[in-house]
This record gives sequence, structure tokens and C-alpha cells, in this order.
Amino acid sequence: MSAKIRLYVEHPLGAGQSVTLDKAQAHYLFGVMRQAVGGAVALFNGRDGEWQAEIVQAGKRGGTLECRDQSAPLQMPPDLWLCFAPIKKARTDFIVEKAAEMGAARIVPMMTQFTNSGRIQRDRLQAHAVEAAEQCGGTYVPEVADAVRFDRMLADWNPARRILFADEALAGETSGLSDIATLKGPWAIFIGPEGGFSDGERARLRGLEHVHSVTLGPRILRADTAAVAAMTLWQQTLGDWA
Amino acid sequence: MSAKIRLYVEHPLGAGQSVTLDKAQAHYLFGVMRQAVGGAVALFNGRDGEWQAEIVQAGKRGGTLECRDQSAPLQMPPDLWLCFAPIKKARTDFIVEKAAEMGAARIVPMMTQFTNSGRIQRDRLQAHAVEAAEQCGGTYVPEVADAVRFDRMLADWNPARRILFADEALAGETSGLSDIATLKGPWAIFIGPEGGFSDGERARLRGLEHVHSVTLGPRILRADTAAVAAMTLWQQTLGDWA
Repeated sequence: MSAKIRLYVEHPLGAGQSVTLDKAQAHYLFGVMRQAVGGAVALFNGRDGEWQAEIVQAGKRGGTLECRDQSAPLQMPPDLWLCFAPIKKARTDFIVEKAAEMGAARIVPMMTQFTNSGRIQRDRLQAHAVEAAEQCGGTYVPEVADAVRFDRMLADWNPARRILFADEALAGETSGLSDIATLKGPWAIFIGPEGGFSDGERARLRGLEHVHSVTLGPRILRADTAAVAAMTLWQQTLGDWA
Repeated sequence: MSAKIRLYVEHPLGAGQSVTLDKAQAHYLFGVMRQAVGGAVALFNGRDGEWQAEIVQAGKRGGTLECRDQSAPLQMPPDLWLCFAPIKKARTDFIVEKAAEMGAARIVPMMTQFTNSGRIQRDRLQAHAVEAAEQCGGTYVPEVADAVRFDRMLADWNPARRILFADEALAGETSGLSDIATLKGPWAIFIGPEGGFSDGERARLRGLEHVHSVTLGPRILRADTAAVAAMTLWQQTLGDWA
């Protein structure tokens, strides 16, 4: 029994553990995915690894699964945050999805001077992160934090967490990646909005000792592309791709 | 005069050169972007670099620009192809956009065994590549090739062009990137469809001497994410980010 369907649940998982489904999960599993009693589903909850479970009861408003064997241990991502300035809805969703796939531990929407997206629907973004974790085989779901103002975030920042700043103004210069290859520990990647960070924000970032600027090549990348590219470079240099 | 609006045209560009706009370009420039006579636009055609141009005539069905100064030389991307298996429409559009931003020279839709997208609208994809080039400040637009069958493509392949194969089956192994860092020359990146390449296709790729397998980390990336990540690694290792 090795399930193709992966489902994130809040419930504790373990051998013989029963897991009840809520209405939305039951609709997805039995309605959309056409599963029935006896079917196999892989469950994970971000804490107990991945478990193969069997459907023992299926209904319109709920259902019950029973855990059999653990199929993967919990694999935590590296201690990497992705801090990004929300952009158009579809591209913001995309950034959250990509952060989960690429192995960010935490996703932080930040309001910069040129951020023209008003408010963030945190719950909707969190649901995107869950779906991406279900898809990519991860056993962990990054938390989507509440949106925070750029100024406030930097004022409260713990300098032990280094910041990788994808600086558009460096386009075409050398990457700076080799300088950071030995700097293990907690990190955050900062991605600006369309139009980039303001001059004031850039000056502030470049003045901080725990900020490391890198370039993402000679072309100006959209924010969503820059997020994936910066996470790739970080994972390859310091993360769990290394 | 430094224009914020960038426009791709087919027309030759040079000092004093007049450039006539077609109906769609006129609609975009005068209708959507609200530009008028005297306004500044940056033009590029993929051959003559970027030119600052002034609007000298504006109408509903066309218009005329006049080139002033060259603002950037032609910058060709490295000789990198992105060969990908088309997926859902929005994600295929996204891959083409990203390939242009990331600096691919050519984009090749390939039909693999698990490709369930029927046909490709080459013109629509080409328009996405143009738009991405306009956005990212590039002076070159990658050509979107006609879709080709995977088998046929490999049978006709010139082995002087090395293939970077993002192999899902290697998830969690070491990257293999250090092995290719010295292999300059033409390359292509191969990205499979949702569900990956078939066992037969994988075996065929792994049996070819000019194919180099790499892993994109321990999680299974969606095809669009994998495309950006693989192009990032290649550009950083062998391309114009290095």
C-alpha cells in the first residue's frame, strides 16, 4: 500500500491512530478524488512524518482514516524565511506555493514603500502552502506569518538571522554568493515588490551588518521569479540541496 | 530622456530611424499606457540593442516613433535552450515567461509520454516571451520553437549541445553541479511534465553521454518551479550570472 494522494491534517499521527476528516477534507477525498472505504491515503501533519492510512469510513460530511505504517520521517526544512512584498494576487499565491516547494520554514509578507497590495488574506495563503506541501512530498508546512511593515520588521530583527538581499541595483555584478557559503545558521531572503525597494529601504538594508547583498543576473527578474531564483541559490549554497 | 516603457518591435533601429507602429502596438502605447506625442519609449528588436525613441505621431490605428540614442547594446543570452513538456495553460505561460527572464536563448516545447497537453499555441507563447523581455530589460527575445516529440528530438540531437536533466528520481542525492562547472558551450535544460519522464524516457536520457543529471533538492518540484530552479543553477554555474 503506497498512496498517491497526500493529505495534510492537524491530527496527531501514529500506528493505529484514527484520524477524523472534516467536511472539506471529506469532499476532497471522496468527492473530488473519488476515494472509498479501503482506499489508501498518505497523511502528514508537520510533526509526525508521513503515514500510510486506510479509509475506514467515508461520508458526505466527514470520514475516518486509520494510520498503518510510517512511510517517511519528519523532514524539517532549513531555518530559512522568505520575506516578500505582496504583489498581484496570482503572483502572491505563486510565491507562497514556491516557498513551500523550495523548502522555506516560514513565509513573511512584508509591506514596503512600493507595495501597492492592500491587505493579505493570511488563511488563503496558508491554504496554498498546505496544498504545495501535499504536492511536493514535503512533511512540513511553512507557516505564513501576518503581514508586517518593513520598518517595523527591521527594527525588531534579531541580527543572528542573516538576510540575503536580492538587490536589483547590482544586476550584472558578481553574485557575492561565495562570501556567504560558510555562514551557516538562520537566514531570511528579502524580495522586494514590482519596482523594487525604495532608495531609503535599500540604503537601510545595505547599512546593516547582517545583510548580504547578492545579484540575480543581468536581467531584472519579476518578484516571483526572483523568489524562486534566490531560494535556489540559498538552498544550493547553504541549505538542504547542498 | 529615459523611458519607463519598453516595446519590442520588428523594425530595424538606429539613430534617426523612424519606426511605425501597428494597430496593437498603438493601442497598447496610446490607449493602455496613455502616451502621447513627445512621450519617450525604449525600443528593442533583438538585434540592435535598446534605443530611446520619441513619439512623433499617435493615432488609433498606428503611430510613428523616432529613435534618438542607443541606451543599451544588444546583450545576447548564453546559448541555453529550455526544453519543457507543456503542462496546464497558465503554468506553460509561466514557464515561457520565466525562460525569457532567466535568459534562455530558445524555448522548445517537447511532447513526452506523460504530456497530456494536446497542442501548443506557438504564437501565444511567443507573445509571452516578448512581454517578458519587455519587462525584464532584456534586449533579446528567445524564440519559441514548434512543439516536437521527445523521441524525435533526441534522435535528431547534436551531441555537442549538452543536456542538463533535472531528474526527480535523484531527489535527495548530491547535485552533480560541480561535475559540469567546467563544461562550457551550448546546453539545453530538460524539464519533464507533471508526473515526470517515463521510465523509458529516463533510461534513454541516462544512457546518453551528453546528458548530465542533476537533482533539485529533496522535495519534488512542480515543472514550473523546476524550470526556474534549473535555469538558476545553470546561469550561476555556466551562464551570464557567473
